[in-house]
Amino acid sequence: MTEVSDLFNSPLHIINVGADLFADALATQGVPVTRVTWQPSAGNSDAALSVLLGDPRVDYANQEAVQRMMAARPRLVDVRPAGEAIPGMHKHLLLHAGPPITWERMSGPLRGAIMGALLYEGLALDIGAAERLAASGDIAFAPCHHYNAVGPMAGVVSASMPVQVIEEPIYGHRTFSTLNEGLGKVLRYGANSPEVLTKLRWMEQVLGPALARAVRAMGGIEMKNMIAQALLMGDECHNRNKAATSLFLREVAPYLVETGTSTEETASVLRFIHGNDHFFVNLSMATCKAATLAAHGMRFSSVVTTMARNGTDFGIRVSGLGDRWYVAPAQLIKGLYFSGFSEEDANPDIGDSAITETAGIGGFAMATAPAIVRFIGGTPADALQYTSEMYDITVAEESQYQLPPLSFRGSPVGIDIRQVVRQHLLPIINTGIAHRLPGIGQVGAGVVRPPMECFVAAAHDLAASIQGEG
Amino acid sequence: MTEVSDLFNSPLHIINVGADLFADALATQGVPVTRVTWQPSAGNSDAALSVLLGDPRVDYANQEAVQRMMAARPRLVDVRPAGEAIPGMHKHLLLHAGPPITWERMSGPLRGAIMGALLYEGLALDIGAAERLAASGDIAFAPCHHYNAVGPMAGVVSASMPVQVIEEPIYGHRTFSTLNEGLGKVLRYGANSPEVLTKLRWMEQVLGPALARAVRAMGGIEMKNMIAQALLMGDECHNRNKAATSLFLREVAPYLVETGTSTEETASVLRFIHGNDHFFVNLSMATCKAATLAAHGMRFSSVVTTMARNGTDFGIRVSGLGDRWYVAPAQLIKGLYFSGFSEEDANPDIGDSAITETAGIGGFAMATAPAIVRFIGGTPADALQYTSEMYDITVAEESQYQLPPLSFRGSPVGIDIRQVVRQHLLPIINTGIAHRLPGIGQVGAGVVRPPMECFVAAAHDLAASIQGEG
Repeated sequence: MTEVSDLFNSPLHIINVGADLFADALATQGVPVTRVTWQPSAGNSDAALSVLLGDPRVDYANQEAVQRMMAARPRLVDVRPAGEAIPGMHKHLLLHAGPPITWERMSGPLRGAIMGALLYEGLALDIGAAERLAASGDIAFAPCHHYNAVGPMAGVVSASMPVQVIEEPIYGHRTFSTLNEGLGKVLRYGANSPEVLTKLRWMEQVLGPALARAVRAMGGIEMKNMIAQALLMGDECHNRNKAATSLFLREVAPYLVETGTSTEETASVLRFIHGNDHFFVNLSMATCKAATLAAHGMRFSSVVTTMARNGTDFGIRVSGLGDRWYVAPAQLIKGLYFSGFSEEDANPDIGDSAITETAGIGGFAMATAPAIVRFIGGTPADALQYTSEMYDITVAEESQYQLPPLSFRGSPVGIDIRQVVRQHLLPIINTGIAHRLPGIGQVGAGVVRPPMECFVAAAHDLAASIQGEG
Repeated sequence: MTEVSDLFNSPLHIINVGADLFADALATQGVPVTRVTWQPSAGNSDAALSVLLGDPRVDYANQEAVQRMMAARPRLVDVRPAGEAIPGMHKHLLLHAGPPITWERMSGPLRGAIMGALLYEGLALDIGAAERLAASGDIAFAPCHHYNAVGPMAGVVSASMPVQVIEEPIYGHRTFSTLNEGLGKVLRYGANSPEVLTKLRWMEQVLGPALARAVRAMGGIEMKNMIAQALLMGDECHNRNKAATSLFLREVAPYLVETGTSTEETASVLRFIHGNDHFFVNLSMATCKAATLAAHGMRFSSVVTTMARNGTDFGIRVSGLGDRWYVAPAQLIKGLYFSGFSEEDANPDIGDSAITETAGIGGFAMATAPAIVRFIGGTPADALQYTSEMYDITVAEESQYQLPPLSFRGSPVGIDIRQVVRQHLLPIINTGIAHRLPGIGQVGAGVVRPPMECFVAAAHDLAASIQGEG
């Protein structure tokens, strides 16, 4: 048996775990030391994690959740006014992005979009009347997610707006999203001037019905296949949708021609889609909503099924925690600003579009979309790095979503709150930046991470619910 | 002054240049040795290279050639029958890919396409008559390149076929290519059955005129911009054209609708283009022909302005060597074969499509197109490696053609025969594989390198012409 004293008579191999104080002291004395980074879990969650990581039911539930997310086969089947398509939707209800919020706490761009929607619906005749009506309590507000809808940025949906209807036949859900308005002055970034409303009316009267006729004539479109192809073409289908928009246009164009009411209208619809490389993002979002919805409600599962922001708060929902939102203040975005704007103009993170990251694309698939860095900042190496990191906090690899720069590895899918909290590693989200004041619009694009508090609170609740069962 | 004997009394630092014999002998005696790879230039060309590398006029001329190649701004301006569009084209002249060749020496797929073209033109009523007519001497054959045209694979152009007309306004050239027929049984791979001819007639009567009306209504399309966008979307615009085809369709669709003669015809045109992800390659080729043509004829320049194959011979032309072809036997292609086919079925390398590599895209831009390896074989790492190698044998980087996986570095452009010969490093070409018998079609796709002899012979001639001047 070795004496303790022998230890100090032989060469020492010192490993320092965690804080560097001891390692630094040795280094100043010339003693070689191996440093291992370690820190306690976020938010004092070691006890909760020990429950969650020790219970195999969590792993089983997570596998089930993510298998359902991957097995889902969302199809675009229709385009109809929200008031007809979305169960429970009505004229005095406005849906918005993110977790629930009152008019008083709404950010500038969300208020701008709400007022614009009231003008668009003819519920108010001028912006002052719209503001008073919004504050009066006569209009109900609810998250899009409560109606299985998703909206980019402010994400406001009103009854007359046409929505794309996605049907998921295996798990039997329908999800919804508005049609993308393009860039510039648009409602989703909080703009509400007459030109914004004129475009919305054209979308209601021409674009929506034209797409509806085409999509019905086609018998629907399988969406994951289109996303998969776009991922091979440098899109990540959140902030780069140029390939997916092109593929969608190719697919519907002959049917638009065959079912069109006039060549002028058909040409105007083709021009509108061609003129907006982001057209596909709303389709991508509703597809991702259908996939994540299939994964929701798995008892014990620590997989995130929603990440969404209303411009004031960031909220997540977790498969095994029912419909409860875990909410914390929304963050500011690091990115590239359009000419004439800076961080001072920026609203905090806003929009339901983080549903794409929740389903394993967007920021999680940036490895395949190096050209996106020209829009959101950073380098192609950053884009690779973001995706590589996300494998550490996800449960599976989505084999349908292959990333050629990673030798066709599937994209990381199924965010596990346990790994987020244990590793202090937050999901990466790429996103547009809205002006903080109502009525202005987009000022840039960049990347952001959610607040850690949401994940910590959810982990504590999930652990408590498991311990409660014994 | 150091004595020679001192040398052997101090530690030796030995560098072995070239053959390993001496290095191996030292290594067996435990003597450290640094190995520098070196080999004589290809084809005993050291004397020629010393002339070509020592004369600054070659470098100046190469800079001028490649600057012109990059400054060219090819535009698609029209679609018209070859007999009207191509100066000198007539009913009894058939153009083909690659350097000049007689009927007797033509490969199977080229013969198949020639016979098909004679049937299509109504010059022969059955395949036997077509063969006799082709062999009779009553039909003239000439390379597409002699008429500023380019054709993929067999590359056969006859008077009635519609050709895309590319106009380059700065240097004043017009170039031409047929419309791409799609995959499967097609003339360019040597098939000539009734269905092939039926499709060619539809292209003549419907597709060509429809595109002509649209392109004229648009006032032309700037082509390099479209290629540049496609390179950001995973195309290399030789064997992957899915993004470029999509972008082209997006651009022309509204004009096809507005200028169409009926919704049925317009829908059929949109469906045809949508159904063929390779539609753009012929446009890419004519664009590259216009760029390389601008670089041709620079006295002293060692930049390659044409690489082309007729299925029997591979030929190059060099900017400073006028219109002379440097020819050697075409190579077999390494690649992936379609189900039921193998290397035994393969014809040697064929087609004018290597004009894309000559202009810095295709195989030279494969770094940006990792998904192409599913079609031509290899891995995404190979694709990166191919592009990286090509910087060693090219004169410039094409700043319009940015490759995101290489941090937006411009694609390598302007093949310098001096560097090819000096480094034994041949250009990489990706390409389809035709069946060696007439009438069958495509059997696979892969990568190939030209025969070194072409480059050696050209280097010797260029050196001789410079020395001749004194």
